[in-house]
This record gives sequence, C-alpha cells and structure tokens, in this order.
Amino acid sequence: METDQRFGLNRHLTLPGPLLLDAGVAFAPVEFAYETYGTLNADRSNAILICHALTGDHHVASDHPITGKSGWWTRLVGEGKPVDPARHFIVCVNVLGSCLGSSGPSSIDPATGKPYGMSFPVITIADMVRAQAMLLDHLGVGALQAVIGGSMGGMQVLSWTILYPERVRSAIAIATTARHSAQNIAFHEVGRQAIMGDPNWRGGDYYADNNPPAAGLAVARMAAHITYLSEAGLTEKFGRKLQGRDAKSFGFDADFQIESYLRHQGISFTDRFDANSYLYITRAMDYFDLAEPFEGVLAKAFAGAKNTRFCVISFDTDWLYPTAESRHIVHALNAAGAPVSFVELSSPFGHDAFLLDVPEQNSIVDGFIRAGEGRA
Amino acid sequence: METDQRFGLNRHLTLPGPLLLDAGVAFAPVEFAYETYGTLNADRSNAILICHALTGDHHVASDHPITGKSGWWTRLVGEGKPVDPARHFIVCVNVLGSCLGSSGPSSIDPATGKPYGMSFPVITIADMVRAQAMLLDHLGVGALQAVIGGSMGGMQVLSWTILYPERVRSAIAIATTARHSAQNIAFHEVGRQAIMGDPNWRGGDYYADNNPPAAGLAVARMAAHITYLSEAGLTEKFGRKLQGRDAKSFGFDADFQIESYLRHQGISFTDRFDANSYLYITRAMDYFDLAEPFEGVLAKAFAGAKNTRFCVISFDTDWLYPTAESRHIVHALNAAGAPVSFVELSSPFGHDAFLLDVPEQNSIVDGFIRAGEGRA
Repeated sequence: METDQRFGLNRHLTLPGPLLLDAGVAFAPVEFAYETYGTLNADRSNAILICHALTGDHHVASDHPITGKSGWWTRLVGEGKPVDPARHFIVCVNVLGSCLGSSGPSSIDPATGKPYGMSFPVITIADMVRAQAMLLDHLGVGALQAVIGGSMGGMQVLSWTILYPERVRSAIAIATTARHSAQNIAFHEVGRQAIMGDPNWRGGDYYADNNPPAAGLAVARMAAHITYLSEAGLTEKFGRKLQGRDAKSFGFDADFQIESYLRHQGISFTDRFDANSYLYITRAMDYFDLAEPFEGVLAKAFAGAKNTRFCVISFDTDWLYPTAESRHIVHALNAAGAPVSFVELSSPFGHDAFLLDVPEQNSIVDGFIRAGEGRA
Repeated sequence: METDQRFGLNRHLTLPGPLLLDAGVAFAPVEFAYETYGTLNADRSNAILICHALTGDHHVASDHPITGKSGWWTRLVGEGKPVDPARHFIVCVNVLGSCLGSSGPSSIDPATGKPYGMSFPVITIADMVRAQAMLLDHLGVGALQAVIGGSMGGMQVLSWTILYPERVRSAIAIATTARHSAQNIAFHEVGRQAIMGDPNWRGGDYYADNNPPAAGLAVARMAAHITYLSEAGLTEKFGRKLQGRDAKSFGFDADFQIESYLRHQGISFTDRFDANSYLYITRAMDYFDLAEPFEGVLAKAFAGAKNTRFCVISFDTDWLYPTAESRHIVHALNAAGAPVSFVELSSPFGHDAFLLDVPEQNSIVDGFIRAGEGRA
C-alpha cells in the first residue's frame, strides 16, 4: 500500500463528482487536499477521520510544507497519541470551501479558467461531510472507527452521525454545538461585513491583481479571535500590560500587549487565508442547525444514530460554544437512545482549549477510542 | 434664573480654559454642549450630574433637536422619576472628545480654522471629568448631591469621587468597571482597526469632502453592539429566525434577523457619530484604570472618598462589565471605609439593561437618592 498514491502526506486529488449540494447545485469536479497516516488494516476497521475547524487544514499531524509549522493537532494525533498511526488509519481532509487545497472560491472554475469567486456555490457543513464521504469511498474506507473534531470539526462529526450513521462507529465532538446561535451568527456577520465593506473585496473578484481585501479580513479575524479566548485567559496572559514601553503613549499605537497581539493575529491570518473562503465557511457554520429539518427537535435528528457511540467534551471557559450547547446535544442523544459520554473539562483557555495542552482531553479520547476497540 | 442663558436645554458654551489634560496638554478653548433641568435651590444642594456612555449625548431627558427621539435616560430622569427636575437641578454634559457638541476631533481648531482630526489630544476619562468640573464651576455648582452614570458614565462617576471627593455627596455607578480588561480593550481595538483600516479614514483627515470611513465605523459599531447584549437576550429576541423570507437564500444577503438588525445598527450609527470621536473615546476607556496611579491598589484610589455615599449596581447578564467588576469596586470601597450599597440585578438584556425598563434599578436609585436627602 506504500506505493498507492492515494495514501500519504499532502495528497491532492480531483474527483469527477458531481457532488450534490444542499443549495441544489451539482458541483463538479471536486478537488481534495488531504493526508493519511498509518495503514488501513485488512478488515478496514481502523479508519479514523479527523475534521478540522474554520481556518484549519489537512496537515493535522505533519509539518506544513510551506510554513514548516508542525501539524495543528499533534497533541492528539501521532505516535503514542490517542489517535496513533501505529494502530489507526487516519484521514484528514481540507474542507470544501476552503482555500488550502480543496475546492473553494479561490479554485479555478474549469468552465471559465478563472477563480470561482462568488460564483462558487454556498455550501453547508453537510456538504463538507458529503465531500469527505466521496473521498473516503475513493480511498476504500467504508465504516469509520471514529470521527473526531472540535469546533466546526465537531459540527462535521455530528453531521456524519446523521447523514451516514451506518458509517460511524464512534463520534467524538469537542467544543461544539448542534446549531449556531444568534450571537455566533452575529460575530460572523461582523467579519463578513468587514470583508465585504473593504473596497478591495470588489464583489469577490480580487484574485487577478494580488490586491485582496486584507484589511477587512484582518478585522474579521481579530473579532473572531476574541471569541476563541476566555476573558480570564486574556486577563491572565495580557491583562493591561504595555507593549514595549513604560508608559501609555497617548496615541493610537498598540500601547497594550493585547492590541499588539490581536493586530498580529489579524495581519498574519491574511497571509494564509482567502477572504472569500472566510465568507463561505462562516456562512456554512451560520446555516448549521441539525434540528432544523426535524421540526426543531434535535433528538429526531439523531434517531438513526443509535448504533454510534458518542463522546461529547466541552470546556468551562468556552463562551463561543458553551457547555450548555454540549448538554443540549447530550440530552438529545439520550432521548434518541444513543450511547453518550459527556465531560466538561476545566481550562483557562476558552474555546481554543481543544487545540492546546489539556491532558484530560487526551486521556478521555484515548479511553473512549480504546473502549470502542474492546481493549480499554 | 429662567432667563439665565447658562441654564436650559441644548446649551452650547465655549470657555477659555485651559483644561490641563492627562496627556500633558493645556487644551483651550473648551466647547461644551449640555442641558440643565430644574432649578438650583438656594443652598445649592440639589445638583445632580448625569454622565453618559460612549456614544451618548447631553439630551438625557429631552427630545433630540434633530432626530426628535426622546432623551436616552427618560426612564430615570424626568417628572416623577428618581432624578426629578421638580426636586433636583440636573446637569448632563456631552463628554470631551465626542462629536455631539463638546470639543472633539471634529471640532474646529481655532489655530487652523479646520477640524482637529488626529491633532486633537488623546483624552482620558479623568479629562472628561475635569471638563465637567470646569463647566459646573461656570454654572455655580459646587458640591453635587449625586453623580450618576452607567457604563462609561459609571467610569466618570468613579473618577469624580477620586478627583473631586469633596464635591460628590453620593455616587451611583451602574454596569461599570474600575478598569478596562484585556477583553474590553480587544473589542475596542477591533473597532479602531476597522476604522483606521478603512481607506476613507485617511489619517483622520476626512472632513472636507463628506466621505468619512463609514464602512469601518459600521463594523466597529456592530462588533461593539454584540457586547452590549446578552447571548440569552439575542437568542430570545432573534434566535435563528429568518428575515423576510421562508428559507435560507444560499447567498450572502441578511438571511437571519440578527444579521439584518446588526447591519442596521452599524449603518444608522454612521449617520450620528464621528469615526475619529469613536477612536478617541474608546481610547479613553481603554486607558481607564483607577488603580494604576495607586500601585494597582484600588482601595488606595478611594482613600479620599470616605465621605461619599456609593451605590453600585450590576446586571447578571452583563458580560462586558460583569458583576465581578462591580464586586471588585465594592471590595475596594469597603477597604477604603467608604459607605457602599451594592445590588446585582437580574435582567435578560445584558449590558444595555441599565438603559432599559428595569423597575428595580429605578427603585434602588430612588431610595438611595432619597436616603441621601434624609427623607427616604
């Protein structure tokens, strides 16, 4: 299998499709950027899909080929980790709509030879999952031992159990929600208005002259970044500490460390992410409401998922998707008769905690996966 | 006194100054927009100063001369209200730095004949208070029966008790804080970057051609507005309800009511507020830290305020200045030996609750004021 070009790091693939989208569009062809780690075993029972968050990519546990940075979830995925290429066949796919290798608004539309821009169809979390299923078919993966993700990755995890319950034996949904709240939508709308209000956005048609709406995208990222951190964590890390000076400047430079940090987060983000992709993916998240097609009753959404084991994890300082949202999921799973473990972990780091060093998260995920393997 | 032009609605006045600012600048002349209600009694003991919030004005209890909207705190101030022109001489002054009549970056610099723009000095909450004291001197008001304000108005209230403790008999600080937190600064910095990143901002020199950085200011307002409301309140009011349509559009229009509402908040704000004033006033709030000149010990800041009665009110769903910030103030006042009443009120409306219909707030303020008059 080592010479099978379907497997390995930094894979790029185009499938003919079409992929039928919630918007009613038959999208084709479909590009995928993905990585696999480990080897699919003989009975094809050890596949684990990792789903990434809004601005993530497929380099879950490998060094990024351009930036050289290590993978975004090496704390959970890797040799000796709960998700281990020595035991598991691990797949991570860049989501549909992104700008990091899979089809998205910055991809070339074969019909025109130019980037799709805003002619790219509006997508949903379910569409991302359908694309992943299409790729897994190509890779010869039927049922998944587990699907794991945090934040928007967790939304994909939950969608997997509804769209393809027979293909998911275990689902691990971390720091996530079953539907975007008014406040969640509001923060995303601020970001979208920052981008679309930037004169460089030009209706999304900005690819030709290398002059993207960077100022708007930076502001969008800054606003979102605040929601990823807890108030207590910000106070602990930055407080009112000044940046490289002894006294306030009585000006509009970044006097405070938090200002300097946020500006850096905003500007550096524009180097690695496409503004249109940010519009499309935030829209997909805002459209996310698992209960909507089921008369608003979440338990009905999970009615087919009785044979999937669920693990739900929240963090006490996460105010983006607070523990109440996880409890809402757990209650619905209970009502649907699906087996579910639920833990609220304590961390000062807010929503971002799932990406950080939280040993309890690792031990819970490890135990849950091993229990599913019958060797806990 | 009725014919004394110093008193009445919609007063505009220029005093020669200079006003000595924290930035080290002697600012002159100083323009004031203000209103007074009621009559100063013979022993000048019934004056109450109302301090407004970030984007507020001096029309606390009168119809706005241009918009025709009623005053912003008519629930608390007016005939038969806790602050009553039949009993009190009420003063409300537009803050220094604003664009609604008092000196600010959009005011004409007499030295150049053009708007100050970014040559306006950076101001602080203490500077706003010093300006108010200068105006009160002109009005013949010595000691104040009470100073009352919410949010940034509460910051001014607390500053009054530190800068001029002998002039404040009662201080009512609502939904406020003794210092801006890292998260508070972060949200303001997002707004400032949205404004300063708007190409129309042009270093603040945009007054000549009626083409201000409206898009940036709208985004700034949208981001801030989210912080004024509670998550539960947004869910209650908007949830995921669609705006004027039966199904999602699979586009980037305002599908959701919360999107439409926020866009309206942003756009309508740009009609009534100046982007540079937004920069200056948010900066003043971010610089606000009462304990800073006192080795970080807030109780020391209040050491001179033992003869002032304090009333501190917070709201349980206010996550901008949560109850913990009010408790911090109360503990410091206790340590300083100042008399203080403290109440956390329950409201679904988040930070904005202090401006809304909260009968308990009225009864608390009324009782506190009357107790100070010796006739509770």
